[in-house]
Amino acid sequence: MAKRSKKERQDLLLDTLKKNPFMTDEELSELFQVSVQTIRLDRLEKAIPELRERIKTVAEQNYDEVRSLLAHEVIGEIIDLQLDQSAISILDIRSEHVFTRNQIARGHHLFAQANSLAVAIINDELALTASAEIRFLRAVKLGERVVAKAKVEEKAEDRTKVQVESYIGEELVFSGRFIVFRSDHQRT
Amino acid sequence: MAKRSKKERQDLLLDTLKKNPFMTDEELSELFQVSVQTIRLDRLEKAIPELRERIKTVAEQNYDEVRSLLAHEVIGEIIDLQLDQSAISILDIRSEHVFTRNQIARGHHLFAQANSLAVAIINDELALTASAEIRFLRAVKLGERVVAKAKVEEKAEDRTKVQVESYIGEELVFSGRFIVFRSDHQRT
Repeated sequence: MAKRSKKERQDLLLDTLKKNPFMTDEELSELFQVSVQTIRLDRLEKAIPELRERIKTVAEQNYDEVRSLLAHEVIGEIIDLQLDQSAISILDIRSEHVFTRNQIARGHHLFAQANSLAVAIINDELALTASAEIRFLRAVKLGERVVAKAKVEEKAEDRTKVQVESYIGEELVFSGRFIVFRSDHQRT
Repeated sequence: MAKRSKKERQDLLLDTLKKNPFMTDEELSELFQVSVQTIRLDRLEKAIPELRERIKTVAEQNYDEVRSLLAHEVIGEIIDLQLDQSAISILDIRSEHVFTRNQIARGHHLFAQANSLAVAIINDELALTASAEIRFLRAVKLGERVVAKAKVEEKAEDRTKVQVESYIGEELVFSGRFIVFRSDHQRT
């Protein structure tokens, strides 16, 4: 691959973070094949805040409250939520999430993140998963950060179809299509 | 429903426990619409051991060792395992498994039981779920016992198709078809 000019790299950095504000400096460094130090300098020059600040900004902008379950019942941390539209959560893979032998994240944790996001997106007091078709696209390792993005695809009378895609950096690692039952009439 | 004679009921009890040795006296009492006390007397008369003993017997009979993950990594308790053929595990739904609001078991715990059983059945050191199609057929409540039964349906070159069906008593509450990747050559 031809080496990018600094300007090209910084433009691409802005673009990349616009699409995915949750990438770490380490992930960006890998993506652009430059040192983490270079990424930090690029961010300084272009006045791009650090990851923690970027997350805070997104979270403060506009963020509905979860209705279908209690906030602490969501697996992962919700970063953005537009009820019945879209939602994002992040899950940092820690030692309790991986197989002892190979440090690969266990499938049910990725499923739990995606499934609870698919339920959290529902604008209703009662929402239960009816079915799901899921794919694990590559092994996720200890220390990686999984960003799950949910989108409502279709809202039928008593059920909602939610598509969830989970990324590490820009790489798709998990995808799932969830059918979630609602009961719009059961208001408390 | 016409009331069964005692003999009919006891024959049916033997039949039922032959198919599903993990049913509790409470579940049997509901199924037969008689008191738990009646079930206990039936068991005494027919010399059917209590649940704990039945589980022990099945577990002692023949039970391969899990290869693809560590025994304590299986979600639920493995009761029977024939590598590359069939496996059974039980999971008792406790307070940490349910939604606070409605005491319904969270989907990812039923998924975790089924998924880890689908991995445990594989006769290989390395096995990872590639994809799954799952259905939640009825809400599972606090205090219920979920019996998951896995069966290898097809073994292709590098992947195995495993069907898992989870029951409460005789009622199907969850089903899933899992595609699990193996790597037969990676022996340690």
